[in-house]
Amino acid sequence: MIYLDNAATTKPDLECLKAAEKYLTTEYFNPSALYKGGYGLQCELREAREKILSLIADADKFGLVFTSCGTEADNQALFCGGKRGNIVTTLGEHSAVFAAANELKQRGLEVRFANINADGSVDISHLLSLVDDKTSLVSVIHVNNETGAINDIFKIANAVKAKNKFTLFHSDGVQAFGKLRFKLTADVDLYSVSAHKIGGLKGCGALIKRKNLVIKPHLYGGGQEAGLRSGTENVFSIKNFQFAAVKRYANLTENYQKVCHIHSLLWSKLDKSLFTRISPADCSPYVLSVSAAGLRGETILHEADDSGLIIGTGSACSSNEKKRFSRTILACGYGEEIADGVLRLSFSSENTAEEAVAAAEILNKLVANRKAIMA
Amino acid sequence: MIYLDNAATTKPDLECLKAAEKYLTTEYFNPSALYKGGYGLQCELREAREKILSLIADADKFGLVFTSCGTEADNQALFCGGKRGNIVTTLGEHSAVFAAANELKQRGLEVRFANINADGSVDISHLLSLVDDKTSLVSVIHVNNETGAINDIFKIANAVKAKNKFTLFHSDGVQAFGKLRFKLTADVDLYSVSAHKIGGLKGCGALIKRKNLVIKPHLYGGGQEAGLRSGTENVFSIKNFQFAAVKRYANLTENYQKVCHIHSLLWSKLDKSLFTRISPADCSPYVLSVSAAGLRGETILHEADDSGLIIGTGSACSSNEKKRFSRTILACGYGEEIADGVLRLSFSSENTAEEAVAAAEILNKLVANRKAIMA
Repeated sequence: MIYLDNAATTKPDLECLKAAEKYLTTEYFNPSALYKGGYGLQCELREAREKILSLIADADKFGLVFTSCGTEADNQALFCGGKRGNIVTTLGEHSAVFAAANELKQRGLEVRFANINADGSVDISHLLSLVDDKTSLVSVIHVNNETGAINDIFKIANAVKAKNKFTLFHSDGVQAFGKLRFKLTADVDLYSVSAHKIGGLKGCGALIKRKNLVIKPHLYGGGQEAGLRSGTENVFSIKNFQFAAVKRYANLTENYQKVCHIHSLLWSKLDKSLFTRISPADCSPYVLSVSAAGLRGETILHEADDSGLIIGTGSACSSNEKKRFSRTILACGYGEEIADGVLRLSFSSENTAEEAVAAAEILNKLVANRKAIMA
Repeated sequence: MIYLDNAATTKPDLECLKAAEKYLTTEYFNPSALYKGGYGLQCELREAREKILSLIADADKFGLVFTSCGTEADNQALFCGGKRGNIVTTLGEHSAVFAAANELKQRGLEVRFANINADGSVDISHLLSLVDDKTSLVSVIHVNNETGAINDIFKIANAVKAKNKFTLFHSDGVQAFGKLRFKLTADVDLYSVSAHKIGGLKGCGALIKRKNLVIKPHLYGGGQEAGLRSGTENVFSIKNFQFAAVKRYANLTENYQKVCHIHSLLWSKLDKSLFTRISPADCSPYVLSVSAAGLRGETILHEADDSGLIIGTGSACSSNEKKRFSRTILACGYGEEIADGVLRLSFSSENTAEEAVAAAEILNKLVANRKAIMA
């Protein structure tokens, strides 16, 4: 089996699972408990917080709230940041931001959506034109989950603050964290990350926040996470996330180069008469979006599955919406023919060059066959 | 080590961990993915939903939404159920309901708190007197997490519906599920459960809802859980929860009898000149709340910890509130002397009669010594 749907979820890293195992077998206490076992886990959680944070931020200037997933982190940012006036986001957001923004609209807030370019990146001048003195929050995805386009969120955040220094800036960093090297700047107030996209477990994410920023919880209760996220802390998954994140950053350059090679190789082997490239040349190498225009991506996905190749169409999370065309791909300006044939190939450092070549061969063959049948 | 803080969290059941392991190693796909591996996990999730539900409800009449914890389930019930008029809850709720109710109050909703009796159970006539034609939601905990008092939620729900048939009835069942045998009646609209209190994992819970009841999500995004809870499904923890819940119900009577014996034995061995019983005689046997009146519970907890006995004071979740006295114990009508000395001993079927005897001996000795020092 060749697994090229790593943007949907990654295979849990066995080494990191092993390292976290003790939080299931011997260190299973409730971290809020007052005895030594509980207190020890509070220290472990603090370590996890600091280690993860220090990979992408100055730990003195930012804090980190563990959540149950990237979606929860995005929701907390939007519902607790977007409280008044208007909020500005983009047509290229993951559903976790897009649906939360639409819910805020339902609740009466003015929500403004910036256009995106053909490659999925945000149209920065349009976005900035939407920001005014009543904008309470701007949310821009760091790496587009469908095309891999990288938004320069630091430049955008800076320009947003220049227009309105009171506007909060949030970014969904789920497809960037653990894959790109960057440091959060002071212009970024809120940043969402997720464990299961980088070899960690489903059910674990975090909302990183500027240290002095006061935000409200999205879950109320026992006051865990300094009152910002109640619910018994999921120590096993959090420690596993720490181990996975630290490992990914320790090998970041090596992984990046390997994935770049796989990405380029696969693209170079795809028959250009059959596939149109959607991803920009300077995208995150972890995602390659192409379209077998004129065919239905879902059909190719199933045929590839039968041939031992696992790929995605758009965002896995969109499949629940039961819409034939990806909202993001349409917002890129593509017609239905291209949108229908979109395939998302997404990589991890566990993939190999051999897999890339084999995947291209399978896809070339399947698409050529299907076109011949339809001709 | 004698672990008597099972109401805070239980040791994960190794057999259930083993049974769920494949969802980390080979069946790690995103359940929303369209290929066979993803679809297979959708089927696994459906099975988990049906199996868990059928343990306490007629699966034709109820549905189940997986959440990241009991707190999230409680929050969804309160924030999505308590939308207008007033809501009625009790002074004996877990923080997940109590803090959410207070947040609703902050947002302008009228919130009415029913008194509780000395044993921690709700004062039913006071509760019913608070319900009127504007009550949108009533929330009553099933088993009090600090005293173990069992509320007859089915009788209460029925009486609430008799006063106002449009009122939604929710119950936090975190300390009841997997420990007591019951079937949800049609009067119960919403019911919260949690995995890590019954040998499952932290980071997994569920909100059970009456089938035709329309509620809003608390997390918005990819539309997982039939649109009621977005975020990539935590398959490993959900399947583990299924295995733990099914196992607990398969052994429910045997476990109950064993825990009853441990509870009674421990209480019988405690020196009645040193300890006042808080738990009622007909409480859930899984909790025994006592007070070493005149001493500080936290001191006894630490001394017991040093002697190899792990116990709680009140709810572990309350420790973050940094308040000396338990809100619930004060609401029971006890003075500060009793409230200060509260110890919560909570059991699982893994505990033994020998542990109960040893725990009583340790506690008798510690409390006698401390009283002697203070005399």
